[in-house]
Amino acid sequence: MKINSNFLNVKESYLFSTVNKKINEYKETHKDCNIIRLGIGDVTLPLPKVCVEAMEKATKEMGVKETFKGYGDEQGYGFLTQAVSNYYAKKGIVLDKKEIFISDGAKSDLGNILDIFSIENTVLIPDPVYPVYVDTNIMAGRKINFINGNYENNFLPLPDENTVGDIIYLCSPNNPTGSVYNKEQLKIWVDFAIKNNSLILFDAAYEAFITDKNLPTSIYEIEGAKKCAIEFCSLSKTAGFTGTRCGYTVVPNDLEYDGVKLNKLWLRRQTTKFNGVAYIVQRGAEAVFTNRGYQETRKNIAYYLENAKIIGETLRKLGIWYVGGENSPYIWLKCPKDMKSWEFFDYLLDKANIVGTPGAGFGENGEGYFRLTAFGSRENVIEAMKRLEKLDLFK
Amino acid sequence: MKINSNFLNVKESYLFSTVNKKINEYKETHKDCNIIRLGIGDVTLPLPKVCVEAMEKATKEMGVKETFKGYGDEQGYGFLTQAVSNYYAKKGIVLDKKEIFISDGAKSDLGNILDIFSIENTVLIPDPVYPVYVDTNIMAGRKINFINGNYENNFLPLPDENTVGDIIYLCSPNNPTGSVYNKEQLKIWVDFAIKNNSLILFDAAYEAFITDKNLPTSIYEIEGAKKCAIEFCSLSKTAGFTGTRCGYTVVPNDLEYDGVKLNKLWLRRQTTKFNGVAYIVQRGAEAVFTNRGYQETRKNIAYYLENAKIIGETLRKLGIWYVGGENSPYIWLKCPKDMKSWEFFDYLLDKANIVGTPGAGFGENGEGYFRLTAFGSRENVIEAMKRLEKLDLFK
Repeated sequence: MKINSNFLNVKESYLFSTVNKKINEYKETHKDCNIIRLGIGDVTLPLPKVCVEAMEKATKEMGVKETFKGYGDEQGYGFLTQAVSNYYAKKGIVLDKKEIFISDGAKSDLGNILDIFSIENTVLIPDPVYPVYVDTNIMAGRKINFINGNYENNFLPLPDENTVGDIIYLCSPNNPTGSVYNKEQLKIWVDFAIKNNSLILFDAAYEAFITDKNLPTSIYEIEGAKKCAIEFCSLSKTAGFTGTRCGYTVVPNDLEYDGVKLNKLWLRRQTTKFNGVAYIVQRGAEAVFTNRGYQETRKNIAYYLENAKIIGETLRKLGIWYVGGENSPYIWLKCPKDMKSWEFFDYLLDKANIVGTPGAGFGENGEGYFRLTAFGSRENVIEAMKRLEKLDLFK
Repeated sequence: MKINSNFLNVKESYLFSTVNKKINEYKETHKDCNIIRLGIGDVTLPLPKVCVEAMEKATKEMGVKETFKGYGDEQGYGFLTQAVSNYYAKKGIVLDKKEIFISDGAKSDLGNILDIFSIENTVLIPDPVYPVYVDTNIMAGRKINFINGNYENNFLPLPDENTVGDIIYLCSPNNPTGSVYNKEQLKIWVDFAIKNNSLILFDAAYEAFITDKNLPTSIYEIEGAKKCAIEFCSLSKTAGFTGTRCGYTVVPNDLEYDGVKLNKLWLRRQTTKFNGVAYIVQRGAEAVFTNRGYQETRKNIAYYLENAKIIGETLRKLGIWYVGGENSPYIWLKCPKDMKSWEFFDYLLDKANIVGTPGAGFGENGEGYFRLTAFGSRENVIEAMKRLEKLDLFK
């Protein structure tokens, strides 16, 4: 038996383990320090009450013969695919229920979708980037091209005549940079994809953080996108589902390559290698899309966005360049005084007891940048910003 | 963008859609018929109370900031991997928690595990078989050899000097045949795998149905198996989790091919393409392994096994050859009078209003055989057997 040797090409990521190691070492020698973590990529507010109530009800149903549920519907329960379809309708996007696949999260589907594409495709990935786009393709042995996000393009790269990619990853609002493509920019990507017979994998996991009405929350707001894009969405950050696991993937009926509908291929893949999301969790997800669910989830998102705003205001005051922080829970800043990412990490930890994430961990173009997140408590965010303002660096 | 053209080689399965079509057509012309379905592969009894209570408690925790859970531990929560480890300890099998991976079901892991193996491997699959073993490998483009299950070997094939396979699928208790390998037979497979540097993928999804103390419920009861086998297990049939989604996969530390530990590869795969099982569901799964959980789940299993026994007794009385029905919820019978599978299906539907599953749907060697399942209600099973006994065929 031979292993898939492509796995040996995946680089070990020491990003978060190194972060934790450095924190622990620091604590050893600074017993009384009060470290504030602004590097956390996980939500901290509890599930909305409406979701809890829906799941309690569903759990009770599972204990009674008459309402017990065994295997669910192939693409997810109709009540949930309908709710997602209605959510898109409010954005002016018409989706058939059969174009929606309920998943256990965007991460699973972003990885598993690659099953239905040839190994021969060349992949195009922005740098800096959420690491799983790269790793999943290395595991499969695909050629990867990178497109540069940088200071000049506000970390929103666009294709030019030299850009080559059959499968294109876009993430907007972006992880890690928090930057958001506008409609004109996405249109350039959609036109590029159609012209080159490419496919866009659009990661919209943070779409619920967009409050600016002019910014697209779905790639299907762009004309032509249904012919060239799959969209991945998640309730992880929308409704605090990181530990509850539910998302959805849209594979439009119009998507056709080599004369084959991708919707049919993905259905085949999922019915063969997946058995759906727990009924209880699907009921919790359904609750997110009710009016009450919308209000409760938006309240939590507003809380995180206010944190981001407080961080952004401080950075502006200190003259630090950054993107994100609006329409996103992430703030991507240029390290002051041209420090390297890890240099700034060490400095912040030592001088302010603040932990963030070094940008260099997200790709070559992340060097010299730093990610802060808005998922902490208000109290900690305010305290951290006070500490930041007092640093000698800014005097 | 090119699709993975291997998908075009996957045969469309019309098995259950044809079954349903035939039933609906029959109902059209026989309005008052009372059809009993003994083809169902899904559980019908509700979740054990102990699971419902554990999940209600966990759901409440998710609604409170202090007890809310975001992303869980990589391989599953320690409370659950420890519970699984304790379960194996009772079988005399020592497993480290790090050898256990909590999954959303055996089907997902059986499909996804293939990511870590080279496409060059030859796969060995018994026929008849659970269709996903075949389909997942066709999707990946692997060469498949079949090994014959038949009347002569009680549908428990064993390797001989001509058997070739790098990756070997074994399912015991078997789906669809209900037959169970004994220790001597499994030892032959383990020795074969070690001798040939092969890997066994052991599907133990039905292990909880084994009541005969002499039959192995895990391949790790066989000496050497930790060096050549991955075991997949599920709570779907053990505890009625088909709609709740939780299972576990054991990848022993001793498993090493090409000098690489499979445990490490699978951890890498799962942390890159999976984000774990809902906290609420893991708490429900933990409850299965408590003393109370054991009693409640075994009560349900005993109910299904009694159904199987009733079916088996009737078949014996009628002189119909079968395997399974003991230590398994499945009964695999030889169609009487040398009927073909679909011929017997039509006959049973028309003359007794009983629905089963034609064996021909599970592979070439299934032709002439028929699967009945024990997941129905007692009342229906008894009524169906009465009808069977009255058939002209047996007079």
